[in-house]
Amino acid sequence: MTATPIRTLPAALDTGMAMVAPALRDTVQHYLCPEMERVAQYHHGWADADGRPTGAWGGKLVRPALALLSARAAGSAPSAGVPAAVAMELVHNFSLLHDDIMDGDTARRGRATAWTLFGVPKAILAGDALLTAATAVLLDSDGAGARSAAVSLMTSTQRMISGQVSDVDFERRDDVTLAECLKMAGDKTGALLSCASSLGADLVGADPMLVGRLGAFGEHVGLAFQLVDDLLGIWGEPERTGKQVGADLRARKKSLPVVKALNAPGSDELAALYFDAEPLTEQQVARVTRLVELAGARDWAEDEAARQIASAQRCLDTAGIEDEVRDDFLEIAAFITGRRF
Amino acid sequence: MTATPIRTLPAALDTGMAMVAPALRDTVQHYLCPEMERVAQYHHGWADADGRPTGAWGGKLVRPALALLSARAAGSAPSAGVPAAVAMELVHNFSLLHDDIMDGDTARRGRATAWTLFGVPKAILAGDALLTAATAVLLDSDGAGARSAAVSLMTSTQRMISGQVSDVDFERRDDVTLAECLKMAGDKTGALLSCASSLGADLVGADPMLVGRLGAFGEHVGLAFQLVDDLLGIWGEPERTGKQVGADLRARKKSLPVVKALNAPGSDELAALYFDAEPLTEQQVARVTRLVELAGARDWAEDEAARQIASAQRCLDTAGIEDEVRDDFLEIAAFITGRRF
Repeated sequence: MTATPIRTLPAALDTGMAMVAPALRDTVQHYLCPEMERVAQYHHGWADADGRPTGAWGGKLVRPALALLSARAAGSAPSAGVPAAVAMELVHNFSLLHDDIMDGDTARRGRATAWTLFGVPKAILAGDALLTAATAVLLDSDGAGARSAAVSLMTSTQRMISGQVSDVDFERRDDVTLAECLKMAGDKTGALLSCASSLGADLVGADPMLVGRLGAFGEHVGLAFQLVDDLLGIWGEPERTGKQVGADLRARKKSLPVVKALNAPGSDELAALYFDAEPLTEQQVARVTRLVELAGARDWAEDEAARQIASAQRCLDTAGIEDEVRDDFLEIAAFITGRRF
Repeated sequence: MTATPIRTLPAALDTGMAMVAPALRDTVQHYLCPEMERVAQYHHGWADADGRPTGAWGGKLVRPALALLSARAAGSAPSAGVPAAVAMELVHNFSLLHDDIMDGDTARRGRATAWTLFGVPKAILAGDALLTAATAVLLDSDGAGARSAAVSLMTSTQRMISGQVSDVDFERRDDVTLAECLKMAGDKTGALLSCASSLGADLVGADPMLVGRLGAFGEHVGLAFQLVDDLLGIWGEPERTGKQVGADLRARKKSLPVVKALNAPGSDELAALYFDAEPLTEQQVARVTRLVELAGARDWAEDEAARQIASAQRCLDTAGIEDEVRDDFLEIAAFITGRRF
C-alpha cells in the first residue's frame, strides 16, 4: 500500500523524534524507580516485558513535535523546547496507561497493554509516576517560563480528566446534547493538543499573546481531529487508517455525528435503534449509518472540521511567526487530521 | 473509653483543621470538574455519595498541620503555609484513592471506598485530578519558593510511588532483606511526612538548611510511625488503635519486625510457617508471634523506633526554630507514633 501524499510523515516529526526520544528515555530513567521504569519502557515500546530493548518506538511523538515547534515559534532553538516536548509525551502516556485500565483494553499499538502484563496496581502507579515526572521535568528545566508552563500543563491535564469523566458518563446516558459532546471533545482531545502547541513557547518565556494564539491553534486542531476521527469511526477508511466501517456504531459510541443526529428533529427511529440493549445487527448498523447521514450529521461534521481547520490556520496567520515554523505546524495538523490545510 | 493523655488531639491539629479545611474544599472546587469534585468530596468525607454534606471530615489533617508548622518554623504566619498544607492533603488522598483500588479495599474510615460507589474509572481519574490540583495549588500561590516546593512535592510523590511498587512486589517474594524493607518504609511513609514537615518552609522561601532539617525530622518520624504501626500489626492494642492482635501476620505482611526475624539466624521454622500457602491457624499465628519475638525482632523494632524518635528530635534541636513551634512539631510526632518525645 502506498500512503497518500497527505499522510507522508512530516519532517518535523522526524526532527522531533531524533531530539526528543533520547531525552524522554533519560527522563524516565532519571525520575522513575527501576520497576516503574520497566513498565514505562514497555508501555512506550522501547523494551519488551522483560526489559530487553526492542529497537522500536511506540508513538509518532506528535505532541512533542508540536512542543518543539512552539519553542521555535517564540524564536528559540527547538532544543529549548525539549523539556516541554518530554512533558507532553509523559502526560499523554500517563493518560493512555490509565485509559487502558479504565476501558479494559487488552491491546494497544499491536501489543498487550501494560496492565495485562504487570497487573493493574503497577499500571496505575506507572501512570502516576509519568504524570509526576512530567511536572518535575518542566520545573527542573532552566526555561524562564517553567512555572507558567507547569501550570498550563496541570490546567490542560485537569481538562483532559474532565473530558474522560464525561466520556465515562456518556456511556450510560441517552440525553447527551451536542454542546456537551463538543465540550467533551475539546476537553479530552483539544486541551492536550492546545497545550502541546504552546508549551514550548510558554517554557521559553514567550509573550502570552503568542502562547495564546498557539494554544488556540492546537485547540482547533484537536476538535478537527476528533471530528475526523468520529467520521472515520462511522464511514471508515480501513485501507488507510485501520478504522473499520461502523466500528463506533457497533460500540454505540456517543460520537459527535451520532449525537448531532440524535438531537436533530425526527430522530425517533435512530434513538430506538441506538438505545436498544441488544447488539446491533449488520443491517441495523447500515440503517443507523444511513439515518445519521439523512439527519445531515455527516455533512455537519465535515463542515465543522473544515471550520475548525480554517480557524486553526487563522490563529497561526495572526501569530506573527516565521513562515517555515507556520508551515511545519500546518504539516503536522494536516497529518493528524488527514485534511489539507 | 478515655483516651490516654499522649493521644490527646494536639492543639496544632485543631488549628490546622480550622485553617486548612475551608481552603481544601475551595481548592477541590476550583480545580476539579463537578463530577470529580463529587468523588473527591465523598472520599474526603464532606459529602455522601449523592453530594449531600455530611458535616463531617475524613482525616485528621496531620500532614497539613505539619506543613503549617513548617511555615511558622521559617518565621512566617501559618497562613502562608496553607497552599503547602492543601497540596500535602491532596497528594495523600490521591494515593489513598489509588491504593484502595490496587488493594481491592472496600472500606476506609468506616465508609465504602470511592471505587466501590463510583466505579474504578472515576476513582482512578479522581486520584489523578487530586495529584494535578496539588501541583497547581502550589504553583498558583504567591510563595517565593513555589517552584522549589512543587519540585519537592514531585520528588516525594515519586518516592512514595516507589515504596508502593516495592510493597506490591514484596507480596510475592520470600527473600526480602531488611535493608529493602527499611527503604520501602522510608519511601512509602517517610517521604510524604518529610515533605509535609518542610513544604511550608520551602514554599515561603526559607533557607535550604532549615528546609533540610525539617525534612529530616519528618523522615525520622515517618520511620518511627511505620515501626510502631508494624508492632501494632503484630502485638496490637485493639482498645486504643483498633488494630487487631496478629492482623498483619494473618495477612502475611512483610512488615519490618517480620522481615527482621526472617533474616535472623535460625529462621527456618518461621519461614516455613510464613511462606506456606495455607491460611495460618490461630495456633500458628501465636507461634509466628512467639518466633518473631524470640528472634529479637520486637525489641529491635522498639529500639529502632526510639532511635528514630531521638534522631527526629535532634533535627529540630539543631534547626534553630522557636521553642513553641518545636513543641508543636513534637506533639504531633508523639500523637502519630504514640510515643513520648
